[in-house]
Amino acid sequence: MNIKITGSGSYIPTERVTNHDFAQHNFLNEDGSQFPQPNEVVARKFLEITGIEERRYVTDNLLASDIGAIAAQRAIEDAKIDPETLDYIILAHNFGDVKKGAIQSDILPSLASRVKHSLKIKNPKCVAYDILFGCPGWVEGVIQAQAFIKAGMAKRCLVIGAETLSRVVDMHDRDSMIYSDGAGATIIEATEDEGGILAHESATFAHDEAYFLFFGNSFDKQLDPDVRYIKMYGRKIYEFALSNVPKAMQECLEKSGIGIDKVKKVLIHQANEKMDEAIIQRFFRLYKQTPPEGVMPMSIHKLGNSSVATVPTLYDLLIKGQLENQNLEKGDIIIFASVGAGMNINAFVYQM
Amino acid sequence: MNIKITGSGSYIPTERVTNHDFAQHNFLNEDGSQFPQPNEVVARKFLEITGIEERRYVTDNLLASDIGAIAAQRAIEDAKIDPETLDYIILAHNFGDVKKGAIQSDILPSLASRVKHSLKIKNPKCVAYDILFGCPGWVEGVIQAQAFIKAGMAKRCLVIGAETLSRVVDMHDRDSMIYSDGAGATIIEATEDEGGILAHESATFAHDEAYFLFFGNSFDKQLDPDVRYIKMYGRKIYEFALSNVPKAMQECLEKSGIGIDKVKKVLIHQANEKMDEAIIQRFFRLYKQTPPEGVMPMSIHKLGNSSVATVPTLYDLLIKGQLENQNLEKGDIIIFASVGAGMNINAFVYQM
Repeated sequence: MNIKITGSGSYIPTERVTNHDFAQHNFLNEDGSQFPQPNEVVARKFLEITGIEERRYVTDNLLASDIGAIAAQRAIEDAKIDPETLDYIILAHNFGDVKKGAIQSDILPSLASRVKHSLKIKNPKCVAYDILFGCPGWVEGVIQAQAFIKAGMAKRCLVIGAETLSRVVDMHDRDSMIYSDGAGATIIEATEDEGGILAHESATFAHDEAYFLFFGNSFDKQLDPDVRYIKMYGRKIYEFALSNVPKAMQECLEKSGIGIDKVKKVLIHQANEKMDEAIIQRFFRLYKQTPPEGVMPMSIHKLGNSSVATVPTLYDLLIKGQLENQNLEKGDIIIFASVGAGMNINAFVYQM
Repeated sequence: MNIKITGSGSYIPTERVTNHDFAQHNFLNEDGSQFPQPNEVVARKFLEITGIEERRYVTDNLLASDIGAIAAQRAIEDAKIDPETLDYIILAHNFGDVKKGAIQSDILPSLASRVKHSLKIKNPKCVAYDILFGCPGWVEGVIQAQAFIKAGMAKRCLVIGAETLSRVVDMHDRDSMIYSDGAGATIIEATEDEGGILAHESATFAHDEAYFLFFGNSFDKQLDPDVRYIKMYGRKIYEFALSNVPKAMQECLEKSGIGIDKVKKVLIHQANEKMDEAIIQRFFRLYKQTPPEGVMPMSIHKLGNSSVATVPTLYDLLIKGQLENQNLEKGDIIIFASVGAGMNINAFVYQM
């Protein structure tokens, strides 16, 4: 028995927000003082580091669970399965449903229950739950689906990543330019087909790193201290990721027994282009190699960082032939990898 | 190989809130109109139905993750294990960390990461994540731990339920009297010892039932509509639970191959005494029996409904001999069962 992705879907929000759209924002330093450089300089430097030209926001009427349900429906259609045959719906997010203009996260019931409701699935044996695991939540959901299948508790699982970071950004923080909204979903199944998940790796670094990404106050000290936003220590995350992600990917690849020469694609969380490039460089350097051209497809330039949604969306675009000069073929080896709040790192090696 | 609970711990908050403490509350109907009966009558009827005389709230300085960490530390000490040997920390909750006086749920990073940080665990291979599955979250966490162990991905897991419902109640809603705060934790391990988890059952009813428990507005229509609270349709939940929980328990017991005569205890989510009694009556009636005296230990009278925390706390009190006229012995059969937001139902049959 092997465990494979038999269908995928994604939802790319319709509201296109360019870097220029931040021109009127009043960016502040962490201590509340005025950021010294003009916004054009901020935007130029931001683009150089992150590679983000634009990002997508959902329209005011949509919630994370709504776009999760759309991506899920597309994955179900792509896999050509009857949704009533699903054993699990696993939904990864970080902030739940946050209504436009409101500040509360709504996570009761779970977003997975909402998606199951939207999909009109009746079968009560289809167990729906949410997982909170930072940006690596979708990858971890796949690892959990794999566990249920291996343990004989499931045959077919729907794993979704859905997030609306646009609802939790501090507009006075330059990091607000990084975040975007999106949803991706996949069907994970037991199959007699060759390939599938060959190995996985998962880790939580919480001793010193637990609060590198956190829920914190606005840089504008005039604002209500009881209102908090997504916040990060970018520099610390960068160094942490560079020290630990390539090693985790290497351990995972070694467990799989696959050689580095066979790796066709690395689908990595779209956090920041410079960071992702440094990770892939360092990963190949562990094998005394340089990354082959096109090994790391990127969607960050136009889609930004939509947390749990980046990896399944990237996979969906890739397999549907929607990324320029990129394709996948039967038998290809892919490494899926992610890093984010927790701090969590995970990866799995997959054969098409 | 068997899978057993090798240690438990709980945290019972120190602030005792009696029904009398609600005497000055201005209870309203759902439509905002004045509730016709005086508060003494409300309190008397409430006590008759729910069995709740008092409930516990955390002190202002504590968060759900704080009390989760205390319960976890106690479970680790009880199991006499080195926390660095844990493969997973699974934490179930419904609202994350909500600061006293604030209205936002803080779930970044996950509460499991916070607990891992508080426990000073360094081992990155100890994977920490949160699960959102309504009140049955802790039971589901045990089922997930079992999956990881069966799949060969773990040997030892810490499963926690922690909740501070006092931070999300609408004081104008009589249901606010039900909710309380608490945390319970257990160590779940692969062992050569006899017994352990014999069977499990898990289900999500989302087609018609997804929003029986939800995040909604205050009954006081003057209050900000963007501020929401825990809300439920009590009557619908009661009927749903009575129709479905006994059947789920029966299916689970049948899977285990154990006869009803061998069931020593049923540890059920402490939602409401009348409902729990009706469930146990109907469960035994499926076997044409009446429940033996003392088969269903209760903690709701003094502790209220602390969601995910009730079942592990009840187990902890029971095994430590802290429930009057109740005890457990080696070899005893217990059914753990829960029902709550999602709507989710689950159960497992366990041999001591």
